[in-house]
Amino acid sequence: MHGEHEVWMKRALELAEEGWGTTSPNPLVGAVLVKNGKLIGQGRHLRAGGPHAEVEALQQAGVAASGADLYVTLEPCSHFGKTPPCAEALIRAGIRRAYVAIQDPNPLVAGNGIRMLREAGIEVVEGILEHEARELNDIFIHYITHRTPYVIYKTAMSLDGKTAANTGHSQWVTGEAARRSVHWMRQRVGAIMVGISTVLKDDPQLTVRGLPMPPVHPLRIVADSQGRIPLTCQLVNRVGDAPTMVATTERMDQETEIKLRKKGVQVLRTHSVHGQVNLKELLEELGKRNIDSLLLEGGSTLAAAALEQQLVNKIMFYLAPKLIGGSLAPGVLAGKGIDWMDDCTWVDDMKAHPIGEDILITGTIRKR
Amino acid sequence: MHGEHEVWMKRALELAEEGWGTTSPNPLVGAVLVKNGKLIGQGRHLRAGGPHAEVEALQQAGVAASGADLYVTLEPCSHFGKTPPCAEALIRAGIRRAYVAIQDPNPLVAGNGIRMLREAGIEVVEGILEHEARELNDIFIHYITHRTPYVIYKTAMSLDGKTAANTGHSQWVTGEAARRSVHWMRQRVGAIMVGISTVLKDDPQLTVRGLPMPPVHPLRIVADSQGRIPLTCQLVNRVGDAPTMVATTERMDQETEIKLRKKGVQVLRTHSVHGQVNLKELLEELGKRNIDSLLLEGGSTLAAAALEQQLVNKIMFYLAPKLIGGSLAPGVLAGKGIDWMDDCTWVDDMKAHPIGEDILITGTIRKR
Repeated sequence: MHGEHEVWMKRALELAEEGWGTTSPNPLVGAVLVKNGKLIGQGRHLRAGGPHAEVEALQQAGVAASGADLYVTLEPCSHFGKTPPCAEALIRAGIRRAYVAIQDPNPLVAGNGIRMLREAGIEVVEGILEHEARELNDIFIHYITHRTPYVIYKTAMSLDGKTAANTGHSQWVTGEAARRSVHWMRQRVGAIMVGISTVLKDDPQLTVRGLPMPPVHPLRIVADSQGRIPLTCQLVNRVGDAPTMVATTERMDQETEIKLRKKGVQVLRTHSVHGQVNLKELLEELGKRNIDSLLLEGGSTLAAAALEQQLVNKIMFYLAPKLIGGSLAPGVLAGKGIDWMDDCTWVDDMKAHPIGEDILITGTIRKR
Repeated sequence: MHGEHEVWMKRALELAEEGWGTTSPNPLVGAVLVKNGKLIGQGRHLRAGGPHAEVEALQQAGVAASGADLYVTLEPCSHFGKTPPCAEALIRAGIRRAYVAIQDPNPLVAGNGIRMLREAGIEVVEGILEHEARELNDIFIHYITHRTPYVIYKTAMSLDGKTAANTGHSQWVTGEAARRSVHWMRQRVGAIMVGISTVLKDDPQLTVRGLPMPPVHPLRIVADSQGRIPLTCQLVNRVGDAPTMVATTERMDQETEIKLRKKGVQVLRTHSVHGQVNLKELLEELGKRNIDSLLLEGGSTLAAAALEQQLVNKIMFYLAPKLIGGSLAPGVLAGKGIDWMDDCTWVDDMKAHPIGEDILITGTIRKR
């Protein structure tokens, strides 16, 4: 059972989620102020440059903040960024205690905010719903630590692990609710990537559609080592819809690159690894371009390569209530596979979430 | 939110579950008697010939049963079987109302029990937690209606739908808790079936092991159209452990049959369908032998055949938190598959249940 502290921290986490898709490159943060068992102020961070969650909560509470307890999902900041440090504001307001879910992984903060509070005589309790708070900001924490995008492999499959019928026909594996939830993910991430086979087969748009807010399209990337992408595909032809990049190798000829660039498509060449795009190099380059997250939407060869190279951080597998069957029907992961079970890739923190008629399985990839 | 009636019926369902694995061929039944908002008697049916749930509850309540409300998961019986009719006992005890989850599908009862109660002036309310009550007795309801075993396809797979690595190595896909739960299923069902490939590859025992009660081994069946089963395999050599049957066709030679029979193995020949065992004929034959349920434990070809012939009623897929990958690694379902998504097999009532480190996905196969 959850105690009182967990209940308030859960409320703060819910507030934090309201910033989903708009706070990047900042973390999601929520805060509540509680006095005599009553909520007297709440806030969440909605966008970079906008007020921080703690400040919003303080404003709501007004003078009542004096002597109140703060529940905040992330350590209050201690530095001048686009706004003054929250730790100072909290000290000035005279709060009594601060319950902090996790320390800020940002090296500019990293414990300084908590130290400032403690030095001002405020009692600080760390670690309430730490796991949930870490999960909420998995992208932010990864990016600020590694400076490469957090990679999420998303796929839709039947219960027997197939992504399409024998012919490749795949419309639709999952239901509407699941498909809509993918657009929420796209709205959040900095980039989406697919392999060239997916472009040749499905001619996808890879844009954000159908959300109740203005779409923020991620960078659309095609891994295409030889430059096989047709100039007539939607990604190239409707390049005005969203930025598009072809990640390739020296195997793409110069002429193709020129044609793509003329259309407005970015072309990024990496060294080739076994003839394929060097994914590690690509991620490092994306990181330099401030892309904090990459949604890998297939196909099975690209996903297997990313997994084998240990570049995937999280999986989101949408399971449809269907059986497709057939030895020849394409599965979720291709690649060369493994000979012994002991060499499998482990998934930590696996969870099932019902979404409409489907079930979403999430988990994080264990590092070897 | 559940109302008062649902709470009591839920308690009755929990009591019913205590008979898991021991009541066959009888259904699982639980009953509670409630008076002035208090539980005054509870009972469950534990084994054929033993007291019925209602009678156990009446005995506990004693004279207090008069004027009480009954919650029972299945319509009280109206006929003399191994025990006198419960409906009569309830009338004699003077209960006021009866809340009945579902009617008894047994043609010997089928509404008669409820009619008897009503004719005696007892108010009867039907349908409380009907879905749950039906699920609890899915095997019983199917068998008494169709007289063929209820077929459950159980498999263990990685998140990407693989049952083994490239080499066929599969120990272990799932964790200990999941493996133990399979033994609970084996304890309940009348028979287990695997394909000959599974015997040749894994040499399984297919017995019930590790349960906190004396094991009741199901009939072990191998579908083996040509009679390739080695006389040295565990199923044949340790036939004393549990009854064993080889289901075959005219393609098995007479000599093999004689050798198997000499060892104590049953041999059942069906007509062949495309060279394979006629599964429909096999199920009908098993039904005649009072086998109410069949747990199909693989392999992928046999499972695909059973699904294509619409002989599977329920699936239990254990998902391990692992990715195996590889185009060549064996998947859950082989067979010829489908060309268009519209021809897929739909799974109704899909649910996810965490079991240890794994997730069990259950569902029922929608009839076409």
